[in-house]
Amino acid sequence: MQLLKNRILSQGRCLEGGVLKVDSFINHQMDPLLMREMAAELVRRFSGVAVDKVITIEASGIAPAILVGLELGLPVLFVKKSRPSTMADFYVSSVFSFTKNRTYDICVSKEFICPGERLLFVDDFLANGNAALGVADLASQAGAVISGMGFLIEKGFQDGRRILQERGYRIESLAIIDSLDNGRISVR
Amino acid sequence: MQLLKNRILSQGRCLEGGVLKVDSFINHQMDPLLMREMAAELVRRFSGVAVDKVITIEASGIAPAILVGLELGLPVLFVKKSRPSTMADFYVSSVFSFTKNRTYDICVSKEFICPGERLLFVDDFLANGNAALGVADLASQAGAVISGMGFLIEKGFQDGRRILQERGYRIESLAIIDSLDNGRISVR
Repeated sequence: MQLLKNRILSQGRCLEGGVLKVDSFINHQMDPLLMREMAAELVRRFSGVAVDKVITIEASGIAPAILVGLELGLPVLFVKKSRPSTMADFYVSSVFSFTKNRTYDICVSKEFICPGERLLFVDDFLANGNAALGVADLASQAGAVISGMGFLIEKGFQDGRRILQERGYRIESLAIIDSLDNGRISVR
Repeated sequence: MQLLKNRILSQGRCLEGGVLKVDSFINHQMDPLLMREMAAELVRRFSGVAVDKVITIEASGIAPAILVGLELGLPVLFVKKSRPSTMADFYVSSVFSFTKNRTYDICVSKEFICPGERLLFVDDFLANGNAALGVADLASQAGAVISGMGFLIEKGFQDGRRILQERGYRIESLAIIDSLDNGRISVR
C-alpha cells in the first residue's frame, strides 16, 4: 500500500536491534485518516473471505481493528494481555515476546468466541508471528476458525509469515520491510 | 445518549462490588457502529471547543478516541500503561487503580505533546477520575492544556466528576450510572 510505504519512509525511524519506530502515526500517536485507509485496504484484500467477527490484541491492534469492523459492520473482539478481575470464564494462551524478552498470558472471554465462528485477525505488526499464533490458539480452543490475518506492517526478514503460512493461514500485509540494516529502512 | 443507555440496560451486567460489566459492546467485544455514534456525540458535545489533538489511555480508550479523531480530522495519542523499551524521552505519572488495587505508571513520549497544545481526553469510563488526573498531569508536565474530557460511561455515584470539575475541567459523559445497588443498573 503506497500511502503507508511513503509514510514509513518519511516518518519511520530505525533503532538499534532491528526496531522500526512508527510511533508518530501507528502505535503511540495515530493518524486516523491513514488508519481508515489501511482498514479499507485490508477489507479489500479479504473481500470474498467469509468473516463473522474481527479479532485483535491490545493495545496497538485496536485502532485498525475497530475501523475494519466498522467497514465490515461486524463486532470486534480485543484479546487482553492480562486477565481482568471481572472475567470469569476464559481461554488463555502463552505468548513469548522477543521485544520484551518475556512470556505473557493472553486471554479472551469464552462468551465471545463460538464454535464455528470465522475470525479475521488484525494487528499492527507481523514479526515472528507469536502474538498471531497465540490468538489462533485461543480461537482453536473455542472451536472457531481464523479466516485470515491482516497486518499493517510486516518485518519480511523475520519468520512470522513462513510460520503462519505453514499452518495454513492466509496472510495480508500492507507494507513489508525487507531490512533495517545499517539504520536504513528498506521497504519491498 | 439514549442509544447507549438502552444498550447498557439491555446488555450491561452488574457484578458484586459495584462493577458494571459492558464487555459485550464496549471494553472487550466492541460494537463499531455504536462506537462511531458515541464518538460523533462526543464531537457534538465539544463543538465550539478548540482542540489540536485527541488523547486517550490504553486499551479501552483507543476505540472511541480513534473514532473521535477521525471525526475531527485530528491526530490521536494513546498514553501507555508501561514504558515501552523503545521510548527514550517521556513524561510519566502514577495512577492508583481501585479496580486492580495497585499503582501503575502511565507515560507518553515528549515528542507528541507540545507546550500550548489543546488536548481532548477521551476514555471509556469515568469513576474516581484517577486515570484522567494522570493524563492531565502528563499534559501539565508538557505545558499542554486539557480542553475537555469526554467519557462513554460515568459512574455518577463515585467522585470522579466532582474532583475533575473542581480542577476546572469540562466533563461530558454519554451515560451516567446512578447506582448499581442490589444488582440493579440504574441509569440517569
